Amino acid sequence: MRLILLNPTIIDGKSTEPIEGFSIIIENNRISKLSKSPTQTEIKGAKVIDLHGFFAIPGLFDTHTHLVSPLSDVFHANETTVARYIRAGKECMDGLSVGITSVRAVGTHNYLDLAWKRSFANNMFSGPRIFASGYALTTTAGHAVEKEITYASDGGPGFRKIIREQLKEGVDHLKLLMSGGCFGDRWDSPTDTHFLTDEIESVFGIAQQRGYKVAVHAGSPESTKIAVKAGAHSIEHGYSLDEESVALMVSNNTYYVPTLLITHMTNEAALTPYHKNYITQWPLPNNLLERANANRAAHSSAFKMALEAGVKIAAGSDAGPLKDASILEIELLVQNGMSPMNAIKAATLTSAAVCEADEELGSIEEGKCADLVILRKNPVEAIGNIRSVYQVYKNGKLAIDESQ
Amino acid sequence: MRLILLNPTIIDGKSTEPIEGFSIIIENNRISKLSKSPTQTEIKGAKVIDLHGFFAIPGLFDTHTHLVSPLSDVFHANETTVARYIRAGKECMDGLSVGITSVRAVGTHNYLDLAWKRSFANNMFSGPRIFASGYALTTTAGHAVEKEITYASDGGPGFRKIIREQLKEGVDHLKLLMSGGCFGDRWDSPTDTHFLTDEIESVFGIAQQRGYKVAVHAGSPESTKIAVKAGAHSIEHGYSLDEESVALMVSNNTYYVPTLLITHMTNEAALTPYHKNYITQWPLPNNLLERANANRAAHSSAFKMALEAGVKIAAGSDAGPLKDASILEIELLVQNGMSPMNAIKAATLTSAAVCEADEELGSIEEGKCADLVILRKNPVEAIGNIRSVYQVYKNGKLAIDESQ
Amino acid sequence: MRLILLNPTIIDGKSTEPIEGFSIIIENNRISKLSKSPTQTEIKGAKVIDLHGFFAIPGLFDTHTHLVSPLSDVFHANETTVARYIRAGKECMDGLSVGITSVRAVGTHNYLDLAWKRSFANNMFSGPRIFASGYALTTTAGHAVEKEITYASDGGPGFRKIIREQLKEGVDHLKLLMSGGCFGDRWDSPTDTHFLTDEIESVFGIAQQRGYKVAVHAGSPESTKIAVKAGAHSIEHGYSLDEESVALMVSNNTYYVPTLLITHMTNEAALTPYHKNYITQWPLPNNLLERANANRAAHSSAFKMALEAGVKIAAGSDAGPLKDASILEIELLVQNGMSPMNAIKAATLTSAAVCEADEELGSIEEGKCADLVILRKNPVEAIGNIRSVYQVYKNGKLAIDESQ
Amino acid sequence: MRLILLNPTIIDGKSTEPIEGFSIIIENNRISKLSKSPTQTEIKGAKVIDLHGFFAIPGLFDTHTHLVSPLSDVFHANETTVARYIRAGKECMDGLSVGITSVRAVGTHNYLDLAWKRSFANNMFSGPRIFASGYALTTTAGHAVEKEITYASDGGPGFRKIIREQLKEGVDHLKLLMSGGCFGDRWDSPTDTHFLTDEIESVFGIAQQRGYKVAVHAGSPESTKIAVKAGAHSIEHGYSLDEESVALMVSNNTYYVPTLLITHMTNEAALTPYHKNYITQWPLPNNLLERANANRAAHSSAFKMALEAGVKIAAGSDAGPLKDASILEIELLVQNGMSPMNAIKAATLTSAAVCEADEELGSIEEGKCADLVILRKNPVEAIGNIRSVYQVYKNGKLAIDESQ
Ligand SMILES: [Zn+2]
Ligand SMILES: [Zn+2]
Ligand SMILES: [Zn+2]
Ligand SMILES: [Zn+2]
Ligand SMILES: [Zn+2]
Ligand SMILES: [Zn+2]
Ligand SMILES: [Zn+2]
Ligand SMILES: [Zn+2]
Repeated sequence: MRLILLNPTIIDGKSTEPIEGFSIIIENNRISKLSKSPTQTEIKGAKVIDLHGFFAIPGLFDTHTHLVSPLSDVFHANETTVARYIRAGKECMDGLSVGITSVRAVGTHNYLDLAWKRSFANNMFSGPRIFASGYALTTTAGHAVEKEITYASDGGPGFRKIIREQLKEGVDHLKLLMSGGCFGDRWDSPTDTHFLTDEIESVFGIAQQRGYKVAVHAGSPESTKIAVKAGAHSIEHGYSLDEESVALMVSNNTYYVPTLLITHMTNEAALTPYHKNYITQWPLPNNLLERANANRAAHSSAFKMALEAGVKIAAGSDAGPLKDASILEIELLVQNGMSPMNAIKAATLTSAAVCEADEELGSIEEGKCADLVILRKNPVEAIGNIRSVYQVYKNGKLAIDESQ
Repeated sequence: MRLILLNPTIIDGKSTEPIEGFSIIIENNRISKLSKSPTQTEIKGAKVIDLHGFFAIPGLFDTHTHLVSPLSDVFHANETTVARYIRAGKECMDGLSVGITSVRAVGTHNYLDLAWKRSFANNMFSGPRIFASGYALTTTAGHAVEKEITYASDGGPGFRKIIREQLKEGVDHLKLLMSGGCFGDRWDSPTDTHFLTDEIESVFGIAQQRGYKVAVHAGSPESTKIAVKAGAHSIEHGYSLDEESVALMVSNNTYYVPTLLITHMTNEAALTPYHKNYITQWPLPNNLLERANANRAAHSSAFKMALEAGVKIAAGSDAGPLKDASILEIELLVQNGMSPMNAIKAATLTSAAVCEADEELGSIEEGKCADLVILRKNPVEAIGNIRSVYQVYKNGKLAIDESQ
Repeated sequence: MRLILLNPTIIDGKSTEPIEGFSIIIENNRISKLSKSPTQTEIKGAKVIDLHGFFAIPGLFDTHTHLVSPLSDVFHANETTVARYIRAGKECMDGLSVGITSVRAVGTHNYLDLAWKRSFANNMFSGPRIFASGYALTTTAGHAVEKEITYASDGGPGFRKIIREQLKEGVDHLKLLMSGGCFGDRWDSPTDTHFLTDEIESVFGIAQQRGYKVAVHAGSPESTKIAVKAGAHSIEHGYSLDEESVALMVSNNTYYVPTLLITHMTNEAALTPYHKNYITQWPLPNNLLERANANRAAHSSAFKMALEAGVKIAAGSDAGPLKDASILEIELLVQNGMSPMNAIKAATLTSAAVCEADEELGSIEEGKCADLVILRKNPVEAIGNIRSVYQVYKNGKLAIDESQ
Repeated sequence: MRLILLNPTIIDGKSTEPIEGFSIIIENNRISKLSKSPTQTEIKGAKVIDLHGFFAIPGLFDTHTHLVSPLSDVFHANETTVARYIRAGKECMDGLSVGITSVRAVGTHNYLDLAWKRSFANNMFSGPRIFASGYALTTTAGHAVEKEITYASDGGPGFRKIIREQLKEGVDHLKLLMSGGCFGDRWDSPTDTHFLTDEIESVFGIAQQRGYKVAVHAGSPESTKIAVKAGAHSIEHGYSLDEESVALMVSNNTYYVPTLLITHMTNEAALTPYHKNYITQWPLPNNLLERANANRAAHSSAFKMALEAGVKIAAGSDAGPLKDASILEIELLVQNGMSPMNAIKAATLTSAAVCEADEELGSIEEGKCADLVILRKNPVEAIGNIRSVYQVYKNGKLAIDESQ
């Protein structure tokens, strides 16, 4: 059935200004037309929803998620394996309710990202689109090696085997943990690079041969440069960056997913009631609090440097639950200097490109899949208005209805 | 909030006749009162639902399920492990929609029954109550040993170890595969007993010491007798039984879960459109078809013998998907000679007793948990009317609403 | 060299009253004579220490210790294996400084109790005598199965193998965890018995054949009765006891080590500054606090019942660090109704008997090894005076000197 | 509290001559001042120790120890694992008593070096500083592969994995066994090199990336050259060397730890009563005696060649017990041609540099940690006087007092 969303203010994910005076016509899951005034033929037999006074934005992305918080061992201790799989699906579904219609998974256990991806794709459950990586690649004593979301090896052949196994399972992209992390143990510091040359060559060699992009966790200018030169599709985190690494990202068209939330999970960084409440509900252990506080200033500077240099920045939270973390991350892009309009682009069209899906998703354009969020208030005026969800459409279907 | 279900015909799971003229008052998840005419005080502030002309039965049970079909390797080949976990939850949730408010799991992988049990209990998802067994116990070369739902050992100590592990995980009861099965390989025949004396003593010894009941899969009179003498709580299947085994079940108050569907998954046995459609959708491979046909007559006789002797019979399908198999099994109880009224008892109060939950569940009585199914048509007149679901209440809350 | 301890008040571990007017003559590590007035021959060439006004008691025991706290995973998380071994030795050495000259280990990792026992025996380090058990025996899903101090098996043969391995290593006695514990998980409750008949027979059969005593952790009257009938040398904990189990202990001459501290590690139970300080320094996690509080009244009653019935009671703390826990336990014996004189006997002569060493240790008698604690104040007047340590002698040598 | 060591003859570990007329002022664990005449202000409230006529040298090092003798399987057969861990600590503590305030461990079991390091650092026990390597890296059929102090692998990836594991544990440096050894089996000869190019590159690649130095056991000129070119921090043993290998060590600033004792554990080499007694107490088995005798001349020549060429030489014994072996090694440096003054430098400042600690340790200089040995007799006159220990200070505290 044809669906006509009548006359919302359209923030299309591309243009510099909101667009007035158009209705969105949806057929066969796609935006068939942006119409000044739908014709009688178009209206006839269509379901027409009056959205005058509302705001339509493209479905939102979170391009850096592990589906459940990477700190699940802290926040959900004693959870069984299957219980964690179940919760992962539930948190994705909850994410859809705040407008997250797509996520990029960057490290999960036992291919649970692929399992939920398929169960959402075939409508067994109603959740966001998932772009899946399977496990994240790390080394012995590498980042996150004690968490179940990583697969560790050493030497080129070991990584080839892991990657080939992942391709066989059906992942969409690869994730590599080039350096230590902000939330790491003593031997897991963002300033250390963990992969050696032949290991890097093995990973990118097989990725290129088979046509897979590699998202690279890099915490320092050094590891970022190594990653970009090797052919990284995106740099994750960049807890500190220098001019050279930023320039390299620009010249190589490398995407940047800053995951600002990681260093902003502290009282000092929480400026809004939502953020404060989040900190209260999911308090970091002291050692991680210290690490977050210690890295925040550099992280914020790195983000601003990248922003000014014109690096393509996408939204990714690296935290959980998705429904809270993903929206906080969008607000943090603004809190750290991005305009609301650009933050929306970061969380839509740029994120779609990070997922290699910008031909189908990420903007309100004729021909694209109809993933849309309808808001009650204008998010360009205040990014917090992105929380005023009225309806969420996924693939042309009303998925969430908060209109009552 | 108080909920008043006004004036349905009540088939309470205990009485021999439907009861007229009472309303069901629900408070704090329980049936607080069966009232001839609710007082003004009771009605005030209550939500009143007019069910005049409808039929209220207790929430239904399936006391023999593996959450997904034990034939999943046939019907869902190439499914990943996590995908199967997810589907198991979905099929439980779909079961709730046809009135199955409780299931007894009798063999599942990796404690997925416990994980879903908890996610339903804490309302993360909306599904039936689960009484969980974890893995089913089998021997090397025992029944179903190649399916992921079993855990094999040999000798008493091995079984103690498995059982103690299961207790640690938090199972509600144990499941033991005493004999081969109808759907088994050459070396897995229902006429063979697989456990030896010391193994049986180990299993029942530990079960008794820790206070756990044992559900026993037994395909023959011999294995049934061994099981009953050892202290089985229920006999599953009984593909053939003799007078001695039936008499033993009566004198030991052993429950019987015939799982008639297993031998009725063939064209020859399918008498209703629902059943025929089921056979078409989930066609048995030829070798299993042969086994089903070969065992059906004896199975049906065994059931009738038990029925006449007064064995306490409960409903359990042993098949999937739950929403189809569980209702088919209830119909097969009637098709094989049980009255509709007694079939409803079998699927409610007797099933609750099988789950050791008859003090809380299984009948429409004051004080019990308000698990209810409201039907549009009288199931006592025709058991097929059990499909005419209007509403399902679980724990006093409207869980399924088909009233539109 | 001969050593003469001149004229202390002697509380000998046996008599009902302190003894005045005797000096203790020590030769070749042993008490050679209790002398009214040492002769000139005896004094000549001897080292004479004037202890007039001081109090001499036998060296103290802690008959229930794991050398480090069984809660080390909580209080010393992230400790490496070798670090824990090292700390175990240090805590023993610190125990000597408060007068603990002997301990009975009842469950340790990798035979660390034997290693330290030998290093103290050969004077590599200066610490108490250790009576070692190696690992404590448990079942799968049995008590403390996730701690490194236990060795789990199932079925008789498995336990025989473990026990025979332990004998080969050189343990002094065996420890068996018959029931769940106070500090256990959901599936590890003191009211559950965990061993089955053939397992118990295997354990006690091999113990008897080889001449080893078995210390039995038992939390309930049922598990206590099973243990006593099977031939337990001592009952550990007895968190609850009934008349029958107490009578059985009396008639079988079974020792009782109540380990009162386990249920007294809470603010509610802490009546002295030492105890309060201990609680502050080693705060139980909430779930254990609840368990301790829930079991304390029954534990205290069980202790009193045993005390009145004349059960032979010994001191054992089951907690760490030894230097604090062992003394607190002695005070708790008094706090729960035992006289100070009898508490000293419990921690000396009765404890020595528990260790099968009462012919050599436990009292100030001619011929016994010279393990002695010299106090500044009279412990019979107030048990807290047991903390007023002036000197500790082990094996006739001055081991601790607090005389400055 | 301020500590003033009044007027000893100072052999500072750096200067070519002893220094007279200075007092050592110690504050906050460090040498705050070397003072001609301490002022009244400095003296006031200070603890002043008159050392006129005594000799102060920096705390001594043993830069090549396994904490227990690598021949423990011979000398301490049947010792249990934990007993060996305990003895390792004891021997370190005994080492402190002869003036060894720092050791470099170059291969130990189960990270026992790290465990004792931490227990000394936090003053649980009083022992020397430990610079830890964890396991020594060897290959299958490599040197010492049957001893518990090594970890064997094959191929680059395997070594990376081991090294990364060791970094995670917290080691200070790495140890690699490039060639066979003097005390090896038939397949373990000092003239054989055991590592292949890609393995060497993997080891040094990861070491460089993470900032760790590599100590290399090399028995021959060939293996020495390979090691030095690859970036070895130190060459251990050098049982034979040629001009090229020595020149390479000079040009690369590679340290040399000759471990002369290894080939001097024979009657033929024992020139002092201490040495003769050592040989008697710890007699080599015949096969090793032969190996020692066969290699001694070349070993001695290699040492002299390196000495003349100006290679930086440090003291390391490779034997046990530490308290005997470390001092014998210093004497052997002199016996083989080094001046006593330079032998002291070898065992102090050069050794500190080998441990990457020469900014903090190794000489008596203002600002350095106050690790000091006070001797009764002048060690420059006769190196044997290094045994005339009067006091040992570690970290500014009196650790050993032999003044009575
Ligand atoms: Zn990351
Ligand atoms: Zn991440
Ligand atoms: Zn079955
Ligand atoms: Zn079944
Ligand atoms: Zn216990
Ligand atoms: Zn204990
Ligand atoms: Zn070596
Ligand atoms: Zn060595």
